Amino acid sequence: MPVPINSDPTASVPVADKPITDERKDSQAVREIRKLVIDICRQNGGGHGGSAIGMAPMAVALWRYIMRHNPSNAEWFDRDRFVLSNGHAAMLQYAMLHVSGYPHMTADELKMYGNAKAVDEATGKWKSTLCHGHPEIEVPGVEVTTGPLGQGIANAVGLAIASKNLAATFNRPDLRVINSHIYCVTGDGCIQEGVANEAMAIAGHLGLDNLTLLYDNNQVTCDGPLNWIVSEDTNSKMRAIGWNVIDVLDGDVSVDNISRALREARAYKGKPSFINIRTTIGYNTSTAGTFKSHHGTYSEEDAANTASPGIAATHTLTEETREYWSNNASKGAALEKSWVNDVKSYSKKYPELSRALELRMAGRYDVKDFLESFEKPDNIQATRQYNGALFNELLSRVPNMVAGGADLWNSNQMGDQSHRIFDRDHADGRVIRYGIREHAMASISNGLAAYSPGCFIPVSATFFMFYLYGAAGVRMGALSNLKVIHIATHDSIGEGQNGPTHQPVELDSLFRAMPNLQYIRPGDSEEVVGAWMAALVAEDRPSMLSLARDPALSLVPNTDRQKVLKGGYVLVENADAQVTLISCGSELQFAVEASKQLNAADIPTRVVSMPCISLFEEQSEEYQDSVLSGTPHVISVEAYIATTWARFCTASVAMDSYGYSGAGRENFDRFGLDTDGIVRKVQAHVRSSVANGLSRHRRWQLLK
Amino acid sequence: MPVPINSDPTASVPVADKPITDERKDSQAVREIRKLVIDICRQNGGGHGGSAIGMAPMAVALWRYIMRHNPSNAEWFDRDRFVLSNGHAAMLQYAMLHVSGYPHMTADELKMYGNAKAVDEATGKWKSTLCHGHPEIEVPGVEVTTGPLGQGIANAVGLAIASKNLAATFNRPDLRVINSHIYCVTGDGCIQEGVANEAMAIAGHLGLDNLTLLYDNNQVTCDGPLNWIVSEDTNSKMRAIGWNVIDVLDGDVSVDNISRALREARAYKGKPSFINIRTTIGYNTSTAGTFKSHHGTYSEEDAANTASPGIAATHTLTEETREYWSNNASKGAALEKSWVNDVKSYSKKYPELSRALELRMAGRYDVKDFLESFEKPDNIQATRQYNGALFNELLSRVPNMVAGGADLWNSNQMGDQSHRIFDRDHADGRVIRYGIREHAMASISNGLAAYSPGCFIPVSATFFMFYLYGAAGVRMGALSNLKVIHIATHDSIGEGQNGPTHQPVELDSLFRAMPNLQYIRPGDSEEVVGAWMAALVAEDRPSMLSLARDPALSLVPNTDRQKVLKGGYVLVENADAQVTLISCGSELQFAVEASKQLNAADIPTRVVSMPCISLFEEQSEEYQDSVLSGTPHVISVEAYIATTWARFCTASVAMDSYGYSGAGRENFDRFGLDTDGIVRKVQAHVRSSVANGLSRHRRWQLLK
Repeated sequence: MPVPINSDPTASVPVADKPITDERKDSQAVREIRKLVIDICRQNGGGHGGSAIGMAPMAVALWRYIMRHNPSNAEWFDRDRFVLSNGHAAMLQYAMLHVSGYPHMTADELKMYGNAKAVDEATGKWKSTLCHGHPEIEVPGVEVTTGPLGQGIANAVGLAIASKNLAATFNRPDLRVINSHIYCVTGDGCIQEGVANEAMAIAGHLGLDNLTLLYDNNQVTCDGPLNWIVSEDTNSKMRAIGWNVIDVLDGDVSVDNISRALREARAYKGKPSFINIRTTIGYNTSTAGTFKSHHGTYSEEDAANTASPGIAATHTLTEETREYWSNNASKGAALEKSWVNDVKSYSKKYPELSRALELRMAGRYDVKDFLESFEKPDNIQATRQYNGALFNELLSRVPNMVAGGADLWNSNQMGDQSHRIFDRDHADGRVIRYGIREHAMASISNGLAAYSPGCFIPVSATFFMFYLYGAAGVRMGALSNLKVIHIATHDSIGEGQNGPTHQPVELDSLFRAMPNLQYIRPGDSEEVVGAWMAALVAEDRPSMLSLARDPALSLVPNTDRQKVLKGGYVLVENADAQVTLISCGSELQFAVEASKQLNAADIPTRVVSMPCISLFEEQSEEYQDSVLSGTPHVISVEAYIATTWARFCTASVAMDSYGYSGAGRENFDRFGLDTDGIVRKVQAHVRSSVANGLSRHRRWQLLK
Repeated sequence: MPVPINSDPTASVPVADKPITDERKDSQAVREIRKLVIDICRQNGGGHGGSAIGMAPMAVALWRYIMRHNPSNAEWFDRDRFVLSNGHAAMLQYAMLHVSGYPHMTADELKMYGNAKAVDEATGKWKSTLCHGHPEIEVPGVEVTTGPLGQGIANAVGLAIASKNLAATFNRPDLRVINSHIYCVTGDGCIQEGVANEAMAIAGHLGLDNLTLLYDNNQVTCDGPLNWIVSEDTNSKMRAIGWNVIDVLDGDVSVDNISRALREARAYKGKPSFINIRTTIGYNTSTAGTFKSHHGTYSEEDAANTASPGIAATHTLTEETREYWSNNASKGAALEKSWVNDVKSYSKKYPELSRALELRMAGRYDVKDFLESFEKPDNIQATRQYNGALFNELLSRVPNMVAGGADLWNSNQMGDQSHRIFDRDHADGRVIRYGIREHAMASISNGLAAYSPGCFIPVSATFFMFYLYGAAGVRMGALSNLKVIHIATHDSIGEGQNGPTHQPVELDSLFRAMPNLQYIRPGDSEEVVGAWMAALVAEDRPSMLSLARDPALSLVPNTDRQKVLKGGYVLVENADAQVTLISCGSELQFAVEASKQLNAADIPTRVVSMPCISLFEEQSEEYQDSVLSGTPHVISVEAYIATTWARFCTASVAMDSYGYSGAGRENFDRFGLDTDGIVRKVQAHVRSSVANGLSRHRRWQLLK
């Protein structure tokens, strides 16, 4: 007699008369997954085995009975997507890839979990392994890199939006070419995190019924029992934010009940589903049900208790379980083949749509000529304003582009896109209203980008300061080589009256230091075009466009969109220069004006525009030298704390405090970062250096 | 007939027979607050007036009828605390301080809102004003600086924990000396933010019944109607996470109903209260109820419609309304006087407790001698391990210290504090289990510190990487001059097997650039003591202690706790040195070992330990020069992206990518940051420099 799978009084439950899975064989398969986990932990001397053991039945349900996937082709376009938001249980995912027939995930790779001795013995070089402490996107069968808790749920929401959007765009009533359902597993940790609560609210609001969240409800966290830190009624909360809730009470043992709940979730229309699955961390081991099971290794006794009779070797399956999984690969291949046939029929019946789908699947679009010829404005504009105009043209031309903002769309000047809104009734829309949820926006964008390479180019938008809320998402995109474009308006003290809480002065230091992120701060409209060119050609990294709230005072002469791709270039040359000013953003206009006044005051000055430091550093040494030149003074001019500039500069005109609640123009004056301030500081510095000689030990200084 | 104040079927509502406020006069007072807001917006040419107008009745209820506050002494210790989480409505708070009798908040200050012309005409210097775009803690009557949405709610939770903790510690059944209730106002924005959802979950879990959250439910955000981005049942969600919910349906007009709901909330025991108050943004103006009312100015007609007959001047109250507020100051003074009497009785009845309370109120404690004499371990320890031992001693000695972790307390090695846990049954506990909610932890810590200067020294703890989730909270603490100590363990690639998602390589760049934050990375146990000394003497800034997961290989010689307070100092001198190595954290041990090998290889080398760059930069130029010396090569050694070092260094041994999932030791080897890697890179660099001369244009380089 199966336990009722659903104790939720508000949802109807189609209880099957008899099991839909083979309970005896399931049980054996689950046991062997648990043994694999114990073997991996024991070999590594530790690991996050407890939740992996507890979740083994749900993993078997997914990989054996529910998910549409093809082990022979992990990249099959229409596969279901699986996200392990509690990524520390990664070894479970590796074990599942191994048993279910993914050829790369060999027993030898499992043995390399934790990378204990990842040196190639032949060459002596460090080598790359597959079984990292957390799942990483480079590994076939892993959809997203999850790490810090909570973000995986947001990634899954992004994948679900992607699938919804493609389905609404391409499926036809008689022929569906997009069927991908998104499965995400979460522990007790992820759903405490703010980012997950934001993302779950968005999923409920959008009615993403192609998303199922499996909650490994084991009531234990790192430090102790869950009730030390949580006393919410999670099911009620999930219902309140728009989710269908299903209970599974015997998640430790019943692959069948989990499978039925998963089927019900997949069939449920109009809401995402939350399956609350009761499990025991480290089920049936000596630390079961306690925080000690969260991380650690297992005893010989635990291993012996879980071992199958007659199987002495570690990392080994019984013949029966190999048989249980044996047709997984062929089933997957058949699924893909059937889909390929559907796509063929589709191409005949809907040739135009089919061509569009092909381009999307290949990640192709072409805006090179458009960008190269897009006209500069003939009036003076703020970079955010011109960016908005350009963005709107791009959004019309690039069907892959899916954009969204965190409730500052108007202030970001992203333009009226009301006809393109993505919502539950218009899933073919390409503009997402993320609400006031910046971290979720960044992490959902990563999920969109991860759906299939190039298929989606997510664009996010909010004030630059608020990207600190989303910074952990931006980071994961950079770490995961995902092409996402973040539009960060209202940068620097030019943000204005909102005050220091809204004025980034140190945030550029984070994003400029973040490996594989292009932080681009264009100085005018011409450079905005260049910033988009740089962002769109970068296939394996995110970009952030840092834009100004207020219009420039005048057009900046000599700026060049093509040269933005080199990161930095000479804007104003001067063969006799004593001083090189390097600047970007709003301050570029002041630096150019200041150079004129310095020239007039017998301090010959040249000016370099450097919208993107990381791109500049990728140029040849010769090019870099030619731009930096050899003036005795190389001085950066930027309304931020000058952290990154010191590698190029002898001195900086910069901030050394938080900003102030005042209009942008006034702030540049208040902090000595307008033309007058620059001239005054540079003049005083050059004259005192001439008088006193340059200090021997100080390689750089902040000009006061 | 008053509208029922509570439509929540699960809560009992004590409906009064007759109004508890003077409805006619309330109505006039509300109208004049609205006119003040319109005047402020019109004078400034813009502002966030719409929600300020909508919230005027709740503000009148709070300031006139409910809050225990004393306008003559904004710092009265036992006052109720008010937090405006939707800080953009700051002008409402300024207006309330003005009308309710706070002498500093003059009409002239109100006219300076937005700081239109904040130059002192006599001196020509920029001056400071009070009415910033968002409330700032420096202004008397403002409890915390709120800015980016959501954090104010977390600050309020911190204030509520503070009040609970003091009450449980000092109140006696017959004599209460702590009565402070915390009122927090939120708009639709804050409660979407992850940080607010984290904080509200914590408040519900802890049963903080001294906290009332007033929800300005106006159903409009910056971009449009709320239903574009939210479709949750907020009341149900709040109940699910442990809150008492009260509805007020006529929040635009009824000061009386709001006041009764506030009384009910204050009386409710066991849960925090959420008052869902329906309002209209920009009530009764031409843009009422629309997103256009969120930010902007008002027409002459709007001003005329709201003006009181006979009052032509802006920023002016009628005689009747001045009368309405006139006894607020004397009522407040009487409240404080009564409390002072209670404290006097308390000092007689409970002399010992009274002395302890006096010390807390003065923010006094003394651990100088203890820290100066605390013994170094005689075995090799990880800095996190030794830090844990020291922290435990400090926690016992400093009653002001209230610490907490984000579910990594064991991994942080903060020690067993189970007897000191703060929970609903033990509010005198001083260790808070924040759950897996890093941003809330950081922002709640700010609230604790803001309760009264020095009264609480909050300590937070999690892995360094996860402080990126909480970075916006850390920033607000630094911006607000709050003394908070963040314990960030598992720093750098030494974090280990969790992999690059958990290994900070660029996060130091953010925290080192953040004004007014001390980021301290001690190299061994001796420097851990120094780090605590530096953190505890810093009264007006937060500190972050960045600690290593793994033990050092050996004790580092010559480290000196006292010298940590100078930020950097010479560890190994060498009069003939060609090379200065500057290092900190885990890498200090490798730098010292490398210097020996370099000396042996005829590259004379000295070593500088620099645990805190910002403290070093506060030293005299002479001191800085003496530490940096004049060696041709000054090379930093640190397992991060080398952003900040270039200001001192000619080159860096550093990371230029994300890390890898491997044991800490292996990672230092893999990335060339152990002793061998340092020696190899420095040797190659020095030799090639000698061969080729130093490049003219490159001021700094990353050694490969």
